[in-house]
Amino acid sequence: MKRIYLDYNATTPQADEVTEAMLPYFRERYGNASSPHLFGREARGGLERARERVAALIGADTREIIFTSGATESNNALIKGIARKKRDAGRHIITTAVEHHSVLAPCKALEREGFEVTYLGVDSYGVIDLDQLRDALRDDTVLVTVMSANNETGTLQPIEEIATLVRERNSVFHTDAVQQAGKLPLDVKELHVDALSLSAHKFYGPKGVGALYVRRGVVIPPLLEGGHHERNLRAGTENIAGIVGMGRAAELARERMENDRVLVTSLRERLHREITQRISDVVVNGHPERRLPNTLNVSFRYVEGESVILSLDMKGIAVASGSACTSGSLEASHVLLAMGVPPEQAYSSVRFSLGRYTTAEEIDCLVKELPSIIERLRSISTFSR
Amino acid sequence: MKRIYLDYNATTPQADEVTEAMLPYFRERYGNASSPHLFGREARGGLERARERVAALIGADTREIIFTSGATESNNALIKGIARKKRDAGRHIITTAVEHHSVLAPCKALEREGFEVTYLGVDSYGVIDLDQLRDALRDDTVLVTVMSANNETGTLQPIEEIATLVRERNSVFHTDAVQQAGKLPLDVKELHVDALSLSAHKFYGPKGVGALYVRRGVVIPPLLEGGHHERNLRAGTENIAGIVGMGRAAELARERMENDRVLVTSLRERLHREITQRISDVVVNGHPERRLPNTLNVSFRYVEGESVILSLDMKGIAVASGSACTSGSLEASHVLLAMGVPPEQAYSSVRFSLGRYTTAEEIDCLVKELPSIIERLRSISTFSR
Repeated sequence: MKRIYLDYNATTPQADEVTEAMLPYFRERYGNASSPHLFGREARGGLERARERVAALIGADTREIIFTSGATESNNALIKGIARKKRDAGRHIITTAVEHHSVLAPCKALEREGFEVTYLGVDSYGVIDLDQLRDALRDDTVLVTVMSANNETGTLQPIEEIATLVRERNSVFHTDAVQQAGKLPLDVKELHVDALSLSAHKFYGPKGVGALYVRRGVVIPPLLEGGHHERNLRAGTENIAGIVGMGRAAELARERMENDRVLVTSLRERLHREITQRISDVVVNGHPERRLPNTLNVSFRYVEGESVILSLDMKGIAVASGSACTSGSLEASHVLLAMGVPPEQAYSSVRFSLGRYTTAEEIDCLVKELPSIIERLRSISTFSR
Repeated sequence: MKRIYLDYNATTPQADEVTEAMLPYFRERYGNASSPHLFGREARGGLERARERVAALIGADTREIIFTSGATESNNALIKGIARKKRDAGRHIITTAVEHHSVLAPCKALEREGFEVTYLGVDSYGVIDLDQLRDALRDDTVLVTVMSANNETGTLQPIEEIATLVRERNSVFHTDAVQQAGKLPLDVKELHVDALSLSAHKFYGPKGVGALYVRRGVVIPPLLEGGHHERNLRAGTENIAGIVGMGRAAELARERMENDRVLVTSLRERLHREITQRISDVVVNGHPERRLPNTLNVSFRYVEGESVILSLDMKGIAVASGSACTSGSLEASHVLLAMGVPPEQAYSSVRFSLGRYTTAEEIDCLVKELPSIIERLRSISTFSR
């Protein structure tokens, strides 16, 4: 059976170039980067070259990059770190209702520790209102964290405008840029963000590696404490092979970003066009233009998204409903609900996310299978219509 | 130039068998283990097989294994987790003066949060006194954390006896078993430990992956919060390739443990014998018998350990002074000082740590180079003699 992967927002296949870059660090350059001898220096060299490459992807200085075990750690370290550091200066945090759980969960934890968190709502496209943000900012707001692109809908937030508002109030602005990195340009200096989270496995790098950009001048205590790694900001023997892989993936992402963008935009438009031509009662969730080029979130009315996913899975086609991190929870997407999408439409949603290795043939295969699946599911649907 | 690696306690080369096991998870079985589709199920399958293998290495049940980014995260998650969970039951923690920094630093952090920490001293071999532990245990002792084998000297602690004492007082016993795993047998049920930390890269697995065993019935809040991964105990997309590598490394460690032990014991004894025959004024640091089979920590009187390391490095031979995690700090080893070793002897210490791939030829090469290096360094030494 052919296998078609259209769930790139959950994770990406690791690029062969990335695997090639990692291999020497498993058996030859395997030293501990903290060791002063040759083996350690080789590892340290790989680490610092990777840091340059990741910094270059987002326009940061190398000293502003901390390697982590992934975006969940980056988000936890930044949010809890800022809160603990600034506890005496203020206990107010602003975020949005559509963030990833690795942002929402630390915010909830801080509420239990006495912080007040404002969850900004979004419009029907999933975009926050800048006036609401302006009103929400207070003298005791120590952190504003707003994702740059949503994982479920692909909707982009006006990051630069948010950064300007936050800067005027001398607060700290963090963005979870996991979904944007490698898909659209990101420049921390142009955007004026203070902190930014990255995950390697969302741009063809290895799982288990991420980075946290923290602007020079912003200081946070380490979440993982121990040795003097990462300039005392993140303890633990560095995952050199993984970090080298992330560096190579970042380099590839820069080189291929425009090609990748053109490819996935074209294929996504083809998919969108075919779906709306062949299937009735389809609604797109998310912003029609201000959206990641690879993401198409649609609700097939009167069917459950989970059923669509299972039916496609039986044909070897992998797509998603909601985010992978909450799959199986049987809850409707908190992102779609925050956008004012009715629960039935939210339950009907399916996320197609394309990537570098997606082909026109794969899209054609999907659009060939999809109409009969939707028709069959609708014929047995318990949804009222 | 030949390269000889004798710093296995800092990190190990990744076994080729481990790399082989990981490769399919980079480009073929790359799904997100939380995804319900085929790609996700393949990843989940690899994850759970690895969990069985890691559990088998330490005699745990699979449900008692949480995968982490390494032992630093395991130690932080357990120590901070127990403290936060039990804050209202008591605020006393017992550890030792010779722990790794990834245990000491979280303990120091908890002191700043109002916990009281007792640092048990050790005898001249590095072993704690069970009577001191018995006296230190209090009704409000919520956690006792004692490493099973020391990274610098290899000295083993009487873990089973410690566990018995802690159990009598209904406290929780955690052991950082990073250095023992794969070198000597470990069985959490026989030892009656409540929690145990592991690191894959210390037994020929990948860097950036570790595990935390937590006995059923002991509950800790997650350090990394977000999605529902690892039964809500550790959020973040699972590092499947790394975890699969750790699983394979654990399996190899079980299969090869006795062979590896016999090999490194024999080579270490050869190294020890040759050093004491060829070089005067040498002292072994650590317990003569109750010690890891691969570790030899010696002080070459009247020279600095760092100078020995640099001189050997110029010959392509990698050894260590103190632990890699604190190298470059220019502080004398806190482990040796706690053993009552005089500062000059501590500064003179060099750690040789052998492993699966160490050969007799490598040991012979080292003992051929070492006498002239020590002689030269002693001739220019500023140490008084």
